[in-house]
Amino acid sequence: MTAPFRIAIAGLGTVGSGVVKALTARGDDLSHRAGRALQITAMSARDKARARGFEITGWRDDPLALADSDADVVVELIGGEEGIARDLVERALAAGKHVVTANKALLAKHGLALAKLAEDRGVSLKFEAAAAGGIPIVKVLREDLIAHGVDAIKGILNGTCNYILTEMEASGRSFAEVLKEAQAKGYAEADPALDVGGGDTAHKLCLLSSLAFGTAPDLAHVAVEGITHITADDIAFASEFGFRIKLLGVARRVGDKIDQKVHPAMVRARAALANVPGAANGVLVDAGEAGSFFFSGRGAGEAPTASAVIADIVEAASDGDQPSPVFGRPAAGLAKLAPADSKAGVSPWYLRFEVLDVPGVLAAIARHLADAGVSIESMIQRGRAPGEPVAIVMITHETAQGAVERALKVISASDKVRSRPCMILMES
Amino acid sequence: MTAPFRIAIAGLGTVGSGVVKALTARGDDLSHRAGRALQITAMSARDKARARGFEITGWRDDPLALADSDADVVVELIGGEEGIARDLVERALAAGKHVVTANKALLAKHGLALAKLAEDRGVSLKFEAAAAGGIPIVKVLREDLIAHGVDAIKGILNGTCNYILTEMEASGRSFAEVLKEAQAKGYAEADPALDVGGGDTAHKLCLLSSLAFGTAPDLAHVAVEGITHITADDIAFASEFGFRIKLLGVARRVGDKIDQKVHPAMVRARAALANVPGAANGVLVDAGEAGSFFFSGRGAGEAPTASAVIADIVEAASDGDQPSPVFGRPAAGLAKLAPADSKAGVSPWYLRFEVLDVPGVLAAIARHLADAGVSIESMIQRGRAPGEPVAIVMITHETAQGAVERALKVISASDKVRSRPCMILMES
Repeated sequence: MTAPFRIAIAGLGTVGSGVVKALTARGDDLSHRAGRALQITAMSARDKARARGFEITGWRDDPLALADSDADVVVELIGGEEGIARDLVERALAAGKHVVTANKALLAKHGLALAKLAEDRGVSLKFEAAAAGGIPIVKVLREDLIAHGVDAIKGILNGTCNYILTEMEASGRSFAEVLKEAQAKGYAEADPALDVGGGDTAHKLCLLSSLAFGTAPDLAHVAVEGITHITADDIAFASEFGFRIKLLGVARRVGDKIDQKVHPAMVRARAALANVPGAANGVLVDAGEAGSFFFSGRGAGEAPTASAVIADIVEAASDGDQPSPVFGRPAAGLAKLAPADSKAGVSPWYLRFEVLDVPGVLAAIARHLADAGVSIESMIQRGRAPGEPVAIVMITHETAQGAVERALKVISASDKVRSRPCMILMES
Repeated sequence: MTAPFRIAIAGLGTVGSGVVKALTARGDDLSHRAGRALQITAMSARDKARARGFEITGWRDDPLALADSDADVVVELIGGEEGIARDLVERALAAGKHVVTANKALLAKHGLALAKLAEDRGVSLKFEAAAAGGIPIVKVLREDLIAHGVDAIKGILNGTCNYILTEMEASGRSFAEVLKEAQAKGYAEADPALDVGGGDTAHKLCLLSSLAFGTAPDLAHVAVEGITHITADDIAFASEFGFRIKLLGVARRVGDKIDQKVHPAMVRARAALANVPGAANGVLVDAGEAGSFFFSGRGAGEAPTASAVIADIVEAASDGDQPSPVFGRPAAGLAKLAPADSKAGVSPWYLRFEVLDVPGVLAAIARHLADAGVSIESMIQRGRAPGEPVAIVMITHETAQGAVERALKVISASDKVRSRPCMILMES
């Protein structure tokens, strides 16, 4: 056996602790797999004293000092797209150390520069834990589904959103109520904006896009819509039509461009993605001639995320002197694929209007839709108590997003229409 | 870039042709990923003259000559557990060449010896295409779900069986009819025994077991039951109970032993495995604390299988001088896990008896079951035309397989019972 592989860990929260515990509990087996002993030689975290259930090894008050330690790999589990996390990753790579990280925000923003740095220095930069937790989708896209290219990726990449939507469906409660409960249970952050606003899904999606399509991570061109406007009504209507509402990250090749977007969608109840339960994640990859592949499992939490980090550590240890390119192809050659017009794609749309129950409202809505070229396939109008607004739900024929949006803009301006109309893509 | 990576291909049937076509069509991208040019330098197949839609390069009449060619990797797509395939793989490894193969039968039988040979010579022996085609389950088990161990694997690993069972359910037709049609369409072999008898699933299962549990492939200890005795009635009854019948390969850790078996099972209609359609494959991995992961997609055919072969070729090309162990851990250290008593596991069972419609038959069956300690949870007896045998279907409470088999043995002996009673495990 060659020399031990020395590991420095920055960040000892849920995931960092999970990594230390698994390396301790199963170190022998993992060392056998790596072909060399795996040895934690340094750690840093915000609070040294916190009880974690394991011994601290090689403590550093300053996480940046890990980059100057004798470690072979620095495991960055601090998080954040700037600040200490970025400094540490840059310094560690510059110092010729491998880096393993779970930091999707950092890579979504600085992925290309960091990949170039890693490849210049001949070290690994691995990030299996940055997308879909325990599901090895990063490696699958980087190394497995490569022979026939990827046409599209469609994923449930945020467990918090999937938990909230699943609970809303099961209980009939509102978004706000379920979010509050999720926060109390620790399934949602105190500031949930990054999750429920779709930003976290966008970070992950643009990493998967980069691997699939050979483009630099390009967060700026991901159109993002979250789930905060989804109501219990929308979920009930979806269910009536045989659909479920899921927050999807979708990346597609459109000619020589790519379309990347995050949005809630109605997915057929029998489809694999519709059956990703609770806080789990699921990813569908359309791999050209090789067909469609589906992967699901736990996308967050201590053990699943630690599982991904450890797979990366073992791979870095066994890679030898020839680490493979960070995003599957040499960073210098990552094509800059132009963004496709994401509003051009057609699909049926679910539309919900809250209107005042006065004569002529429906006629006005129907006319505005017709003027924009949006034709209606079916409609439900449901009675409410007198004086309350009425929900009108329509399903369109296949229509471009842009056309529907133009119609809704006009309709929103009417004083008979309460709140912003809701539009949700339906998978055809 | 380093020197080109030279590829010799033995076997130019469906998969071999798919490999050549994909390497030709996407060679530039794949070479970028590998870090060196990928170059086919030699080929061999049974019939040189056959039209394949691509040019022959470096033809050898004798496939064994590929082992002495200048290739860096020999891709064995001949098949068969002995004969030319085995000779070629042994010779190529002995000559210090990497080997990529789709040959499950060969590895199930000689996997340990071949892995030792590969590791002795410091070369790769890769077999992603040997199990579940395009689904990268071999790599997932070898490199990804390693941090928390694997408790169980449950897979639909044979597309022919899944196609037949799916068609039987959709059409209500008999096994024999659907098999005949599948043969006519080319979905089943002229001699279907290896598929429908469960042997092919057993080959694949013992490779996955080896990767998951760190044991040598041990085909002799896989209990195998196929689908030839499944009737249209069984499928209809399953559907009535909310189940589907699937041929599963199941490997579980039971203490320090492992239980490996192939058998038809009733899977709940909403479960992920129940929704693996047609000729697709699906694998559920229970990865301890990290939770359950599910993978599905096309398990056979030109492009999916070629996709797996090519991923292996690219990995062999980029591995450099340190190929990772064939079964995830060094072959010399693969633990010999003892087989668990596969008849000890309890579950509910579906039992179907074809009986003569005479007084006392049901009482006799019920008594024999009670004597063996098998208690019945529910029963259906369905009338037939006078004089025809009657189907009695029972679902047991959780019972050990051995107890049910003892009762059925006694019941079979009765002259009131027509044909062998059918027993199918129900997932609880």
